[in-house]
Amino acid sequence: MSKPHQIRTALDELLDGLVEGDPFPPERELATRFGVARETLRQALHELLVEGRIERRGRGTVVAKSKLVQPLSLSSYTEGALRMGRKPGRILVTWDDVPATAELADALDVTEGVAVMRLERILLADGQRIGLESTHLPSHRFGTFRKTFDPTTSLYAAIRATGVTFGSAVERIETVLAAPREAGLLESTTAMPMLRLHRRSLDTDGTPIEVVHALYRGDRVAFEARLT
Amino acid sequence: MSKPHQIRTALDELLDGLVEGDPFPPERELATRFGVARETLRQALHELLVEGRIERRGRGTVVAKSKLVQPLSLSSYTEGALRMGRKPGRILVTWDDVPATAELADALDVTEGVAVMRLERILLADGQRIGLESTHLPSHRFGTFRKTFDPTTSLYAAIRATGVTFGSAVERIETVLAAPREAGLLESTTAMPMLRLHRRSLDTDGTPIEVVHALYRGDRVAFEARLT
Repeated sequence: MSKPHQIRTALDELLDGLVEGDPFPPERELATRFGVARETLRQALHELLVEGRIERRGRGTVVAKSKLVQPLSLSSYTEGALRMGRKPGRILVTWDDVPATAELADALDVTEGVAVMRLERILLADGQRIGLESTHLPSHRFGTFRKTFDPTTSLYAAIRATGVTFGSAVERIETVLAAPREAGLLESTTAMPMLRLHRRSLDTDGTPIEVVHALYRGDRVAFEARLT
Repeated sequence: MSKPHQIRTALDELLDGLVEGDPFPPERELATRFGVARETLRQALHELLVEGRIERRGRGTVVAKSKLVQPLSLSSYTEGALRMGRKPGRILVTWDDVPATAELADALDVTEGVAVMRLERILLADGQRIGLESTHLPSHRFGTFRKTFDPTTSLYAAIRATGVTFGSAVERIETVLAAPREAGLLESTTAMPMLRLHRRSLDTDGTPIEVVHALYRGDRVAFEARLT
């Protein structure tokens, strides 16, 4: 067994005995306890940070909340969070109209250049920032949302309330590093890996409902698919 | 628009005019051409590397092959690669028996401590290393593979050839940074984000077939789910 592997196993065992919010021992103390170089320990702690097992709080480090597991399904973020016993929330960042690029026009089945409604929101779970979601909706279909929709509530609930039923979606999942703006909005850094999700949803008639680009903090979110 | 955003848009446009394998202009030339600081440019190029748009080749940089999109389905890696027109391959790293941990025993429905067959392989697409897959199989069920199975071929094909039919699976997707050993096996670095996949597959009778831990290079692989 390599030294990095041994130290990681020791830290995992240490974590098994702790619960969310417990203080995690400082680097110096751990280096002495396990008899490893600070550099080796630092790499292991960085892994734990990236995996969301520990998190910085003020000048110290604590055991993190377990990841929010989002089901890959036609259900909304709100439903996924509630299923995990987390309180969903949203902060509005941008709400505007953008001209449809060729790609967006094709995906939403609208004419290139027409106004598409864009809603960019920070997603919260129990008050923690976990993702940044940018939804594009055809204005001719959902333009009334400007008067009726409260952007701190569930968008899927509002869409369904108009009589639209989600029929199918294609989701693509990748990993990226956040650009400075996105890292800032997510209270993270450009060195922390993120999960990027691209989704296109259609209603039961096959008409496009939305195109979504979302960025989730990799230390706070996992996706789960049930395949048959 | 921020400077980082502008430079990224300019680089995306530059990439749109290039094809796989084309040389990508050196940092110094791009900094001059776009009139930005080397540091700003370096951040943008690092993003492109992480996203797999460009890759280092020798002392230069070239336009990368597009990502391998793996469908989230009960089909195998082999089928996913072939569907994308890529030639699948595998390199055997480890093939041994390990005693079932409590977690593994529970997942495979075997007694804790019994021998479980572990097969660790590097996954290739057109000769490029794209993932590292560690599969755990109940020895009492697939022990004969030691005599019959060629580990450079499709494991799913071999499992199906024994009369077993895949019935369902649960897959969890996360992002992590690779540990030094995994980074080395994937010819990557510990700074590059990876997609980590955990899968448990059952046959049509609900009996466990396998537990898989896989690590995919985030710059070379994306996952796609079709939801209904």
